[in-house]
Amino acid sequence: MTRETYRLLEDYMLSCMDDSAHDKEHVYRVLYNALEIAKTQEHVDYDILIAACLLHDIGRKEQFENPSLCHAAVGGEKAFAFLTEHGFDTEYAKRIKHCIQTHRYRENNQPQTLEAQILFDADKLDVTGAMGIARTLIYKGIVAEPLYSLLPDGTVSDGTGDDTPSFFQEYKYKLEHIYDRFYTGKAASLAKERRQAAVDFYHCLYREAASAYRDGRETLAELLTDS
Amino acid sequence: MTRETYRLLEDYMLSCMDDSAHDKEHVYRVLYNALEIAKTQEHVDYDILIAACLLHDIGRKEQFENPSLCHAAVGGEKAFAFLTEHGFDTEYAKRIKHCIQTHRYRENNQPQTLEAQILFDADKLDVTGAMGIARTLIYKGIVAEPLYSLLPDGTVSDGTGDDTPSFFQEYKYKLEHIYDRFYTGKAASLAKERRQAAVDFYHCLYREAASAYRDGRETLAELLTDS
Repeated sequence: MTRETYRLLEDYMLSCMDDSAHDKEHVYRVLYNALEIAKTQEHVDYDILIAACLLHDIGRKEQFENPSLCHAAVGGEKAFAFLTEHGFDTEYAKRIKHCIQTHRYRENNQPQTLEAQILFDADKLDVTGAMGIARTLIYKGIVAEPLYSLLPDGTVSDGTGDDTPSFFQEYKYKLEHIYDRFYTGKAASLAKERRQAAVDFYHCLYREAASAYRDGRETLAELLTDS
Repeated sequence: MTRETYRLLEDYMLSCMDDSAHDKEHVYRVLYNALEIAKTQEHVDYDILIAACLLHDIGRKEQFENPSLCHAAVGGEKAFAFLTEHGFDTEYAKRIKHCIQTHRYRENNQPQTLEAQILFDADKLDVTGAMGIARTLIYKGIVAEPLYSLLPDGTVSDGTGDDTPSFFQEYKYKLEHIYDRFYTGKAASLAKERRQAAVDFYHCLYREAASAYRDGRETLAELLTDS
């Protein structure tokens, strides 16, 4: 890829993401991780891979404003339109669209090409380890969701079986189960290296919160009087 | 304290914090932690301590809307006004106001009473360990500040000496140095137990981000061509 093309795609990506520092940082990490994964594969088309990584989340704003939209579907269409309007080959634009549209985990819409699988893995890698924890907490701040829910007895739920959204719920439903969903060995091994940091953080946070509620509520109940 | 007074103060606190799930959770943790710390002290006035804990952050919204205001100063005045309007003794309201106005670290405005020192410690304890990391990340999401800044060579800064706000900057300037600022031995020992979780998380997150940028940018530079 030429520097000029890179700058064109980077500028378009940045123009689609003017609302969040975190989305931009994520795009660069996905690109850089994808390039590391790609080193372990043969016959990678870097013109496809770099473009797909840069543009993979350009549909985020649309999904945030209208949750019934899928950012992967929207982003794929936006990328295809942008590329063909800027004189890129239709076949090239189609292959990038496929990568973007399949980067989100969906049973019936899986990445078929090597570049799509590398993008998928690089994107999932950013949900593992300490980075996955950090990104999830940042998102909970943005959407004003709590760290934890309380059980009927007033103690802190660890997230298991929770119906209402919280950080612990997302950890139990999503973050904990992401480690066996990689196409490439490189991504799987990087994810494995990062796993313990996430597990340790979750357990420490749960312990800190749960112990405060367990001991404190009991003490409070003893101190309050009827009249 | 009677259950009726507790409910009155709790309802007023909740009415002051309708904008964030996280502020409410923090208030209960501070209250519960304060009660645990208080168990190790003699002559604690629980009517003061419970009220001060419940109301300590009721000036947050004012500070968020106008950063030149100090939420401790505003909160102390609001609490005093609320308590005297609801028939509580002026001396009682004054002592609670002192706790609230000195709960934020300021050289020239330190907590003088036992209850004020316990509130101070319980509030600081919630910035230690995994909880301190989680709350800081949530806040970075709310105010749209980045996880890290980049150094002039394009690699990830670990936060040391950073001028611009980021999670790593706050870790280096604030979270790392909070562990020796406690009045009570109980809070100091709880903080010490929690410290390693924060240190480990920071190092893992830095390693994950820094390695992606270091390796990925080099690979990208090799792949991009002039024409």
